[in-house]
Amino acid sequence: MNIKSLIRTIPDYPKPGIQFRDITTLLKDASGLRQVVDALVERYAGAKVDKVVGIESRGFIVGAAVAYELGVGFVPVRKKGKLPGDVLGHDYALEYGTDRVEIHSDAISPDEHVLLLDDLIATGGTAEAAAILIEKLGGHVLECAFIIGLPDLGGERKLRVLGYKTFSLCQFEDSE
Amino acid sequence: MNIKSLIRTIPDYPKPGIQFRDITTLLKDASGLRQVVDALVERYAGAKVDKVVGIESRGFIVGAAVAYELGVGFVPVRKKGKLPGDVLGHDYALEYGTDRVEIHSDAISPDEHVLLLDDLIATGGTAEAAAILIEKLGGHVLECAFIIGLPDLGGERKLRVLGYKTFSLCQFEDSE
Repeated sequence: MNIKSLIRTIPDYPKPGIQFRDITTLLKDASGLRQVVDALVERYAGAKVDKVVGIESRGFIVGAAVAYELGVGFVPVRKKGKLPGDVLGHDYALEYGTDRVEIHSDAISPDEHVLLLDDLIATGGTAEAAAILIEKLGGHVLECAFIIGLPDLGGERKLRVLGYKTFSLCQFEDSE
Repeated sequence: MNIKSLIRTIPDYPKPGIQFRDITTLLKDASGLRQVVDALVERYAGAKVDKVVGIESRGFIVGAAVAYELGVGFVPVRKKGKLPGDVLGHDYALEYGTDRVEIHSDAISPDEHVLLLDDLIATGGTAEAAAILIEKLGGHVLECAFIIGLPDLGGERKLRVLGYKTFSLCQFEDSE
């Protein structure tokens, strides 16, 4: 079974017209979890990586396993108000209003090379905000990597225009 | 550095009188992350484990790495309304009011042996609710394991009275 075939699509979730790509069916499968982690570890094993940053909360799942395998530390980027220490925050636009992600101020050291991981990239707002936080702390974003890319929503394209490298293990078109 | 010494205590968070035990300082340390995952993997490597369940959201971090290393699948238990598929839920009492955790109805197969992981056990309400969900799906809870135990709050004791095995990598007394 390949990675994409283990991802379940739930129509009209969380609202009508949205095709939700559910990775829980991939993660509960021992072979699926292994394939995802192995593919990411293989991609970055030869690169200089000092930290893996995972975005709350599904980005934590694969992020920590990849960090462990690469032999580096794991750093969570969380929604506003969830981290207990001194934080740096960044607001980003949603369809209506704004949202905010935060990182601990001491999470990244200057000049560290950071791999940014999340489960899925849609419009890319959260990933861009997380990358900005990494850079504000003096880190370098090696790449923004995702299990799922949604090319119709343009998130990876936007990140690349901003100068970030991106990678996704599989892609879903809107029509799938 | 041992695991306990890498955990940061933040006084009066999230409210006065609470000593918050912050694992982000442990996880961002490559050696700290490695020690936590290795200790858990070593403990369960010889046991029959079919799935690892991690509780949202810090339980996702170590849970997925341990699942990967044990060669089994990972299942998230989440707060109400966060899982997109058909779910089973369980309410549990808080100091004031109740809370609810959910699991996908197809996440565990009957007679699977399940390791339940979270970062910390306080009064044990969430872990008990997660264990009940696993059993409702026909799974057997091998053990409830935590990075941090808080013996003054009695959570591990309560789980043991209920018949569950428990394990924590380190303990903090209230006075620490």
